[in-house]
Amino acid sequence: MKIVIIGGGAAGASAAARARRLAPEAEITLIESSSMITHAPCGIPYAISGIVPSYKMLKTYDVSRFTSERRINVLTQATAQTIDVEDRTVKVSVNGRLEKLKWDALIIATGAKPLIPKLEGIEEVSPITLRHPEDVASVKARLEKARKVAVVGGGYIGVEVAEALVELGKETMLFEMMDRLLPASIDREISEILEAGMTSAGVDLHLSEPVRSFARREGKVVLATDKDEYAVDDVVLGIGVKPNVELAVEAGVKLGVTGAVSTNEYMETNVEGVFAAGDLVEKYHLVLRRKSWIPLAPAANKEGQVAGANAVKPGSLRMRGIVGTSVTKFKELYVARTGLSQVEAESNGFKVESTLITARSRAGYYPRGRDVTVKMVVEEKSGRILGVQAVGLDPVVASYADIAALAVERGLSIEDLFLSDLGYMPATAPVWHPLIVAARTLSKGRF
Amino acid sequence: MKIVIIGGGAAGASAAARARRLAPEAEITLIESSSMITHAPCGIPYAISGIVPSYKMLKTYDVSRFTSERRINVLTQATAQTIDVEDRTVKVSVNGRLEKLKWDALIIATGAKPLIPKLEGIEEVSPITLRHPEDVASVKARLEKARKVAVVGGGYIGVEVAEALVELGKETMLFEMMDRLLPASIDREISEILEAGMTSAGVDLHLSEPVRSFARREGKVVLATDKDEYAVDDVVLGIGVKPNVELAVEAGVKLGVTGAVSTNEYMETNVEGVFAAGDLVEKYHLVLRRKSWIPLAPAANKEGQVAGANAVKPGSLRMRGIVGTSVTKFKELYVARTGLSQVEAESNGFKVESTLITARSRAGYYPRGRDVTVKMVVEEKSGRILGVQAVGLDPVVASYADIAALAVERGLSIEDLFLSDLGYMPATAPVWHPLIVAARTLSKGRF
Repeated sequence: MKIVIIGGGAAGASAAARARRLAPEAEITLIESSSMITHAPCGIPYAISGIVPSYKMLKTYDVSRFTSERRINVLTQATAQTIDVEDRTVKVSVNGRLEKLKWDALIIATGAKPLIPKLEGIEEVSPITLRHPEDVASVKARLEKARKVAVVGGGYIGVEVAEALVELGKETMLFEMMDRLLPASIDREISEILEAGMTSAGVDLHLSEPVRSFARREGKVVLATDKDEYAVDDVVLGIGVKPNVELAVEAGVKLGVTGAVSTNEYMETNVEGVFAAGDLVEKYHLVLRRKSWIPLAPAANKEGQVAGANAVKPGSLRMRGIVGTSVTKFKELYVARTGLSQVEAESNGFKVESTLITARSRAGYYPRGRDVTVKMVVEEKSGRILGVQAVGLDPVVASYADIAALAVERGLSIEDLFLSDLGYMPATAPVWHPLIVAARTLSKGRF
Repeated sequence: MKIVIIGGGAAGASAAARARRLAPEAEITLIESSSMITHAPCGIPYAISGIVPSYKMLKTYDVSRFTSERRINVLTQATAQTIDVEDRTVKVSVNGRLEKLKWDALIIATGAKPLIPKLEGIEEVSPITLRHPEDVASVKARLEKARKVAVVGGGYIGVEVAEALVELGKETMLFEMMDRLLPASIDREISEILEAGMTSAGVDLHLSEPVRSFARREGKVVLATDKDEYAVDDVVLGIGVKPNVELAVEAGVKLGVTGAVSTNEYMETNVEGVFAAGDLVEKYHLVLRRKSWIPLAPAANKEGQVAGANAVKPGSLRMRGIVGTSVTKFKELYVARTGLSQVEAESNGFKVESTLITARSRAGYYPRGRDVTVKMVVEEKSGRILGVQAVGLDPVVASYADIAALAVERGLSIEDLFLSDLGYMPATAPVWHPLIVAARTLSKGRF
């Protein structure tokens, strides 16, 4: 059996490893356009700031180790050019020469790529984008010459890049078209805490201020908004990503309503024998009960496993769905969320109630506890937990989203969560866990 | 309506607060034998070491605030002497004078008390016990005179007291009759990591070495075991606690098989109108599907709420049960667990499989990640998760037990957990969460 996987990131490498495990005799080829596999783009901001000393660390496996331990044929610097689904082949360009690879099962894991808006001057200015760990060296070199840098976009990438710039001692501006940060993920009360943290660290936030054009002028980059013009030394673009679907589409693979590749729960596309996994694929949202596109590494990894398993053993593993758990931070301020924000829930027709509580991350008397703020969103009548957001100067808030993820996935109510047996010791949590306090508050005195 | 609550700790104070909330007109009296209420005995080791500057911090509410905000009649330094269930009264001694309090509902929350073994010389030596935050001052004074101190007991109290003694610069010995630490809670592989951590911090561990007798000799305390005699300056006894049931029993309240007070899920005892909550009560274990006695603060708090609610609104709230989630630490080494250990599961007739994995607490490339070890115990055929233990030099392991607690409570399988949407960012977790790695390992290649 011949298996070809296009893309050596989280999803592709997981798929390859899984296929190998279940099919020791299969011939498995992994096609990767860079020279790294199992690369971790989530780490790019930390390699830029220097918290992670080298971009070369942003991977799980060396190519040689992956090849030798897993007996997988890894083609790096290789680009899949066309997929022939009749012939079951992929045309690949490797080192300038074209090869044709035969497959019985094909897994497309081409990921996502930065959104580049069609703005005046964008080609002339050519803002920095964060696409691949291998770009880090050139980004760092370019930033070395800059004193004042603008970040365009206030989503996860924008926030994390702003952290990196502050760590590098840059004068940092951030432009976001919406009136708050992370508007697609968290509600305003939580955004505001993040905004305050960034502002107090010196980030010059420009909310409700979409960038309209770029220009080079007198050695500077000038950003124009509806309000003003701003001269900076360089610009990082982080307005988001889009699914990298061109190759799949050309092969006849169908996209879903979200614009990402549509698969069934076995990660198989509409084309028999062609699977897709990772950031180019839309996911089933367990609360919304429909497809949504939330490109995150944990789902990509699992989808890779599922695709790899089903490529060699059809129907052996299925992807249940996601609830959109994610975490980010700005310096020591952590923000985590799962399920639906209130805005998201209401815009999807849920009648909701919510609470916002502030608690300590440790027992009140124990040193180094921090204020943590939890927002919990529940369905009005049933009390079913739809989503949780948490923010605070303690990484423990990330675990609140994890605990809540299980509660949301399983349809737990506030009473279920209140009565759940979360642990306690003074140095790790208060005796009333902040999630339990939030659930209790929403009961309005019932418990 | 008159409600009397005996005991002002976690359970009693929660019950009082809940009753007040649901019955604004009720006459509520809280009887407490010390001068503090809402006291937090879990914090005693940290008040002894000085990490918490004063024992007075080991409470949630001042008496005056609790009284004024909640309009609850708090009697401190008051001892409930007898309960008359016919007459519905409690006889209380307050400042040396006897009072008789009438009740329509009575909540007994007398907690637990240290186990004192009947060993030769124990009265003469009178080892230090940790019972109440108010004891801290005298314990500290007594320890000031000691250079070398022995801890008897290797459970949670013993481990936490040993930390306090090391923090105070004492030469510290610890004696445990079993061949490992925390034998009732965790399996040997996890105990061994804790033991290594304590030994390397200078604790002289004596496992499999029950203390047989105590004596005072030449200004020293001498502990005799089957192996040797040891001269120290003082001794702390931490072999465990027992439910403080005498008052309840005298009133005709029945105990369960565990020796703790038996209640129904509304926290009502066999005596109509008499509730019990907290460490004196046995709990329903959701995995064992029978009563067990695990005295921990979070359950005590919730039982108090449930008892307080049902005392004024019968049948309004029920306690579902527990899975025994608990956390401890020795210095920076954290140990957390939930559900059943392998030993516990097997001795209760479960056919189990388990895995022990070591992972990093953060992305491999992110600084300050730590090795964390997770043991997962599952039912052999179904793959249902029965219990999880986690240990490592990162407080995040406490959250692994919390996440797993929900999984265990809800009967999730390893596949369910593998596919759950736990969050990821390099600074808070690896992309494959250690719990997911453990679940995957147990699938033996299925995922």
